[in-house]
Amino acid sequence: MRSVFILLCFFLLPLYLSAQSFEVHSPGNKITMFIALDESGAPHYSVMQNGHTVVQKSDLGLTLKNIGSLAENFIVQAHLHGEIDTTWNTVWGETTTIRDHHSFLILTLKQKQTDIIMQIECRVFDDGVGFRYIFPWQEKLSNFIVEDELTTFALTGDHMAFWIPGDYDTNEYPYAHTRLSEVDAITASNKYPEIGTRAPFAKNAVQSPLLMKTDSGLYISIFEAALVHYPAMDLLIEPDHVLKASLVPDALGNKAYLTTYCSTPWRTIIVGEKATDILASRITLNLNEPNKLENTDWIQPMKFMGIWWGMHVGTQTWNYSNAKNIDLASTDWNALTPNGKHGATTENAKAYIDFAAANGIQGLLIEGWDVGWEDWFGKWKENVFDFVTPYPDFDPDIVSAYAKQKGVQLIMHHETSGSVTNYERRLPAAVDFMVKYGYPSVKTGYVGFIIPRGEHHDGQWMVDHYVYVADYLAKHRITLDAHEPVRPTGLCRTYPNWLACEAARGNEFNAWSQGNPPEHETILPFTRLLGGPMDYTPGIFQIKVNYYDSSSTRQVHTTLVKQLALYVTMYSPLQMAADLPENYMRFPDAFQFIKDVPVEWDTVKYIDAEPGDYLAIARKEKDAPDWYIGCITDEEARDMDISLDFLDNGKYIATIYADAKDADWKENPMQYEITDQIVTNKTVLHIRMAPGGGCAIKIRPKK
Amino acid sequence: MRSVFILLCFFLLPLYLSAQSFEVHSPGNKITMFIALDESGAPHYSVMQNGHTVVQKSDLGLTLKNIGSLAENFIVQAHLHGEIDTTWNTVWGETTTIRDHHSFLILTLKQKQTDIIMQIECRVFDDGVGFRYIFPWQEKLSNFIVEDELTTFALTGDHMAFWIPGDYDTNEYPYAHTRLSEVDAITASNKYPEIGTRAPFAKNAVQSPLLMKTDSGLYISIFEAALVHYPAMDLLIEPDHVLKASLVPDALGNKAYLTTYCSTPWRTIIVGEKATDILASRITLNLNEPNKLENTDWIQPMKFMGIWWGMHVGTQTWNYSNAKNIDLASTDWNALTPNGKHGATTENAKAYIDFAAANGIQGLLIEGWDVGWEDWFGKWKENVFDFVTPYPDFDPDIVSAYAKQKGVQLIMHHETSGSVTNYERRLPAAVDFMVKYGYPSVKTGYVGFIIPRGEHHDGQWMVDHYVYVADYLAKHRITLDAHEPVRPTGLCRTYPNWLACEAARGNEFNAWSQGNPPEHETILPFTRLLGGPMDYTPGIFQIKVNYYDSSSTRQVHTTLVKQLALYVTMYSPLQMAADLPENYMRFPDAFQFIKDVPVEWDTVKYIDAEPGDYLAIARKEKDAPDWYIGCITDEEARDMDISLDFLDNGKYIATIYADAKDADWKENPMQYEITDQIVTNKTVLHIRMAPGGGCAIKIRPKK
Repeated sequence: MRSVFILLCFFLLPLYLSAQSFEVHSPGNKITMFIALDESGAPHYSVMQNGHTVVQKSDLGLTLKNIGSLAENFIVQAHLHGEIDTTWNTVWGETTTIRDHHSFLILTLKQKQTDIIMQIECRVFDDGVGFRYIFPWQEKLSNFIVEDELTTFALTGDHMAFWIPGDYDTNEYPYAHTRLSEVDAITASNKYPEIGTRAPFAKNAVQSPLLMKTDSGLYISIFEAALVHYPAMDLLIEPDHVLKASLVPDALGNKAYLTTYCSTPWRTIIVGEKATDILASRITLNLNEPNKLENTDWIQPMKFMGIWWGMHVGTQTWNYSNAKNIDLASTDWNALTPNGKHGATTENAKAYIDFAAANGIQGLLIEGWDVGWEDWFGKWKENVFDFVTPYPDFDPDIVSAYAKQKGVQLIMHHETSGSVTNYERRLPAAVDFMVKYGYPSVKTGYVGFIIPRGEHHDGQWMVDHYVYVADYLAKHRITLDAHEPVRPTGLCRTYPNWLACEAARGNEFNAWSQGNPPEHETILPFTRLLGGPMDYTPGIFQIKVNYYDSSSTRQVHTTLVKQLALYVTMYSPLQMAADLPENYMRFPDAFQFIKDVPVEWDTVKYIDAEPGDYLAIARKEKDAPDWYIGCITDEEARDMDISLDFLDNGKYIATIYADAKDADWKENPMQYEITDQIVTNKTVLHIRMAPGGGCAIKIRPKK
Repeated sequence: MRSVFILLCFFLLPLYLSAQSFEVHSPGNKITMFIALDESGAPHYSVMQNGHTVVQKSDLGLTLKNIGSLAENFIVQAHLHGEIDTTWNTVWGETTTIRDHHSFLILTLKQKQTDIIMQIECRVFDDGVGFRYIFPWQEKLSNFIVEDELTTFALTGDHMAFWIPGDYDTNEYPYAHTRLSEVDAITASNKYPEIGTRAPFAKNAVQSPLLMKTDSGLYISIFEAALVHYPAMDLLIEPDHVLKASLVPDALGNKAYLTTYCSTPWRTIIVGEKATDILASRITLNLNEPNKLENTDWIQPMKFMGIWWGMHVGTQTWNYSNAKNIDLASTDWNALTPNGKHGATTENAKAYIDFAAANGIQGLLIEGWDVGWEDWFGKWKENVFDFVTPYPDFDPDIVSAYAKQKGVQLIMHHETSGSVTNYERRLPAAVDFMVKYGYPSVKTGYVGFIIPRGEHHDGQWMVDHYVYVADYLAKHRITLDAHEPVRPTGLCRTYPNWLACEAARGNEFNAWSQGNPPEHETILPFTRLLGGPMDYTPGIFQIKVNYYDSSSTRQVHTTLVKQLALYVTMYSPLQMAADLPENYMRFPDAFQFIKDVPVEWDTVKYIDAEPGDYLAIARKEKDAPDWYIGCITDEEARDMDISLDFLDNGKYIATIYADAKDADWKENPMQYEITDQIVTNKTVLHIRMAPGGGCAIKIRPKK
């Protein structure tokens, strides 16, 4: 399966040449990247697609603390270019194999006055480019501090953009959709006070990945890949449609502490003539390092349920008591008065295990099992949780034995409260606990401002932390689902035990806030999901929260059927069946889709999409002939014709989960129709989606 | 041995009284502390000794972030006072028992506009006072941030002071001796560029403990006790001889993050008519919490040697190679080229073990045994050491087996490089390593600016860290000697495995810098040592460094004999025989004193002292009839008559290690005379000390 084709050309140029330029053409000649040193020795680049400029002459370089600008006065010392064509196997993913076919250039630059050597490495694919800075070992530079990154992306116009505010600590915003010139990140951020840890920092700052659409219909995504030992990159919108890299600072305003040999993350520009080209791009994964784990047999994608949604709709609590002013070290937990609503009880856990086992759901997340939930939120306390002490009404011996007996895997929950120093101190004991009780997976959480105080969720120190945890867990054969981390950038290739992240606005916001607009899930695959799977927690059937609390006006901003479609449109090897068991029991026919839909796939077909409007994706189950289709729409009702030409020959049965005729996300979200239809690869299915609705289809061979 | 006498009076006063005042008299009526609320409800205090004012009307209170000032508008809700007389046993110490006899007042204040309750607790001893703020559990205050502490110490004049610059990251300064009004901390700090992590912050800032002498001859020390979960207190010298508390900030400028119930450290004012009264005060220890460890049998004071001084005089190195640009994760240590001067080799370790075993030295510290020393100093790198990987030429299997066979205890060395996050991550594995190889003790080091970046050595987060390490080690029966930590404040009572700290300018500065002036060791017992033992590393016989390196002009600023006397004048349960074995072999008769002098004592007699000039102390060996006397002088030659009236009846032999007649710390430091003399408790020994010299005496019963 692995084939490599490399063409290398190597030139050692005479020193102190004047301005020079280089062109790198993608293997299929669709994308060209130009890199040149101008007369002042400043490196620049630009990108064209099919002869049209995508990114105009843009800056390259960094500023180092106490050293100065690495942006001009360079000469070219050497350049190396060639082509790579290889195919690698995924441990899990949208497809079982991924082709990595690109041309590359490594330009070695030397700054005249400092003798500092900086390399710029470019990889040019047929659907975009990646480039990064490399600092090889050298006499003149060993340990240094990055003060600023000077990379710009000079766009050709005032494109429409899907953006969330630049923010050091959260990515849990809905997307705005405006011209670049209309971005106002501070105002946008202030619309979402429900986000606990907002740190917007400039009116003109947005986060990456940033999806844009030009007036001529081209889709452009600016992002990064392999974010390791470096802060996340936000983008400042400067005059003339120039985006400038903006790195998340540490407590002192420094950006990154580096030691040669080292490289920055890749800066990527993905270009598509169709929206689905963006979805199909594998640039982010291809620019990450290969799997680092020796053995991956133990890594198990799964569907799971959770003692979780009840807390969001208010029928249960994470905390065991309503005591205040709790001190982790001295509280006698047995002496607290239970509040009667604690979710993570032995009894509840056993009931969930029964339900999961009966319905083929492999995993169960139990939140609020460990002491400390009474007094932490927003407090910036260091010692909140210890990750090993259960509440008095939760017996891990009983629960883990029962889960084992029923064949259900328990998913640990480590809410760090943002107190990362505390978490790192206690991680060894926490992992020992997991190993003892046989938890193969953990959901981590970072709700709250970070300790070390002054560090941010998206800064270098925290970026290091997330990788540290993934690596540490891998050593103990534990998989990871990180909530509230920095946005992922494809590191799941390198650490395939890192199954998913949240790192965006998940479904739970619908339960207790203004929620996620109906278009939200049509945008995420073009933005957040470029970096890796999201634990979005789909599958909410009881759409309106007034079912639990008559005073609530909150609701999920989709139809029930759209919740089913999300299992296909939002790829993840971890998929939650997020609603309460009793709600699934109310709608057993709809629940059948969740029971059936797999989490492991052979391949994918991106049928059609327009970000912010609609999305239709078909996936073939791994090692099985079945296909699943998910279609979703925004607040508009929508008709769609779906050609099944991807099917093999022969007859199939399509089970179609459709919005009822009068369904509507707001007025009538829970009405649906399930029909069977015989189809072949000649069939064009006509589907209709309600406002805020969708359609979910299972296609299996007719026997 | 334990006797308790408590007298309690309790008044619940009617609310909203006007100004009120309280007096607390020490048990012997020598010290009186006044506390009053003035007409604006602002609490104040003052202190008198024998009818004379020591501290005039001074401020009390704090400022809380987002809450405001807790300094006025209070009413007295309740007050509780009484007297305590108890005696407790030390695990180790200058004496085997310590009496704690004080009067106390707990004043409960309520602020009218906020309803916040703050208590002020005072303890008044015959030699000084301690007071602190307490925040009991209350509805109106749970988690809060201290922005400033408003405590002042309004002195009665422009006293002479022994001070080091206020500094967030180092206490390794020599002492200046000026009037308070003459303090210039920035200029003073800049005189010592050899200190790697200076962070002076204000011209008028000095560190505590601050020793002062009034023009009428009273000695006053201002310090703190039980520094836990709070930053260290520096002192700002404000107009009119007012000292104001100045807390070390975190990265964001905040001082402390607290949760009720909580208390600040004790602020102490120790008062003495004689200088030796300051040495004899037990206020600091008495204000600390009792021993927290269930079992202390395993805690073993000891003398030790080290593969250490060779690095300071340049004959050896910590690093194995001279490679640069080392990365902990990827370096192949076996592939490095040894530099030929690496100290911590298996061979050297065995030789030191042989020497220690032959001379009754119980321990051996080995520095530079673990990989990472090539590329770290001043680099602010996070991952420098892993604390478990030995250099290729150091075999812990062989060394630990050899040490065990010879009965020598190995002392681990953990240089954190200030990268505390890295150390905390790796501490469990590092301790496992120690347990595996039988290291009962560890010397930690914090050379470098702190990571988390923006935190300081003396801030709350690091204060928590030092205690965390002491506590963690205690759980594994390991003793601690912390170098470059915050100054100790008596916590060795609570964690008696915390045998010593450096936290001041140690002997090694003499090897490679302008060194320590001859008066240095006459000041330390009045300042740094009030908080607990110091690992000063005495015992250097080869005084001048040009012995090793003819180009060096560095030297120890004492005579050889003064180095012997330090084993008595600088109390510590850990005492290093710091010089190289070959130097001890050159002077075996003088080395006999180091072999003889114990580290465990029954009692102490502070014979005479004048800080900055001279000091004479006698100590009786624990469970033995032998006494040891140490006398030291500054740069002046000095004669002293020492009455041996503390001896029991009968004849003793005094072995007197004296400076030779023409000895001089600078010109002729290594000449000495050793004589025996029959003495009784009627004897008055006349001793003569050379400039920068001293005298060491062992007195044993004549059989």
